[in-house]
Amino acid sequence: MKVLLIGANGTIGRAVRKQLERHEVVTAGRNEAELLVDITSPNSIKEMYLKIGKVDAVICAAGATFFGPLTELTPEKNEQSIQSKLKGQVNLVLLGHEHVNNSGSFTLTTGIIMEDPIVGGISAAMVGGAIKAFVESAAFELPRGIRINHVSPTVIAESIEKYGPYFPGFEPVSAYRVAKAYQKSVEGGQSGKTYRVY
Amino acid sequence: MKVLLIGANGTIGRAVRKQLERHEVVTAGRNEAELLVDITSPNSIKEMYLKIGKVDAVICAAGATFFGPLTELTPEKNEQSIQSKLKGQVNLVLLGHEHVNNSGSFTLTTGIIMEDPIVGGISAAMVGGAIKAFVESAAFELPRGIRINHVSPTVIAESIEKYGPYFPGFEPVSAYRVAKAYQKSVEGGQSGKTYRVY
Repeated sequence: MKVLLIGANGTIGRAVRKQLERHEVVTAGRNEAELLVDITSPNSIKEMYLKIGKVDAVICAAGATFFGPLTELTPEKNEQSIQSKLKGQVNLVLLGHEHVNNSGSFTLTTGIIMEDPIVGGISAAMVGGAIKAFVESAAFELPRGIRINHVSPTVIAESIEKYGPYFPGFEPVSAYRVAKAYQKSVEGGQSGKTYRVY
Repeated sequence: MKVLLIGANGTIGRAVRKQLERHEVVTAGRNEAELLVDITSPNSIKEMYLKIGKVDAVICAAGATFFGPLTELTPEKNEQSIQSKLKGQVNLVLLGHEHVNNSGSFTLTTGIIMEDPIVGGISAAMVGGAIKAFVESAAFELPRGIRINHVSPTVIAESIEKYGPYFPGFEPVSAYRVAKAYQKSVEGGQSGKTYRVY
């Protein structure tokens, strides 16, 4: 399978790459990747797809979100999450499905806080809820048997220093376990599914 | 109670106004309202709040979304939904909570298709999922006992000519029944709640 992995250098991306090493994985990201892409730019996404041609699977493990409490959340800070993790992921599907082979797949990324919210996670939770609903609709709207799922991890052990304080009482999971869910989405047969890794 | 009702002239807005007639309801909208507001503009939202001062409840029954199938959905068409029903509603909260009295409330609007999707509803479903997750986080992040809920109606009998073809097999509900859910949110005590009117 030819797999396009966006966000290949992140904590999740690196683990996914290892998990899928028996496939032909093409890495994409803002830097140090085979294809450079800025998912906040539709034109950059289009260029990436033109360069890679046809693929069997698209995985997005990229996308920034603003972390901070509601009382400090401005429309501008919220816009960071909307531009990147929301519209970035959605536009990878809207602009990419013609580049995905029959019965191929998309796998996007959300997170536990869309259904088990934390203080300071409101902007990221909003994005997760949007992507989940988008995936559930796209599952039966995508043509040619193309599937779509999303992986919703809890806080990841490898990122605990940065995100741990936001997740009191949440049991961390390894990036390895999270990567297994992406493998399930790519190599399995389900569509419209939330792969919870809690 | 002083209630700010945005989208007062829509099918839902008119029914809500009638349901809340024992309160002091101030109407807002793009036209034919006491306060003119364009919720796609943060500055317009700020001006509306400065004009009205303090309120006990904010209801948003406004917000446009793009209806059409995924294969015709472009980033630009999806942007209509994001600018209006997603960011419009979120920004009413972010820019408005300081104008809401202690123990006041916000009531936003989503829809059944965020969890029971239809062909052509993907953009609107995405927005609904975003608002639902936003509300569930905001419920415990809003200060001074301010509550927040959202009403999720199915297709409305009064709008059946326009939206009926998108909702095969969905049983319409009256705008009156939907308006009762807004009343429950405004006059009740719950927060973080999805009021399903199915």
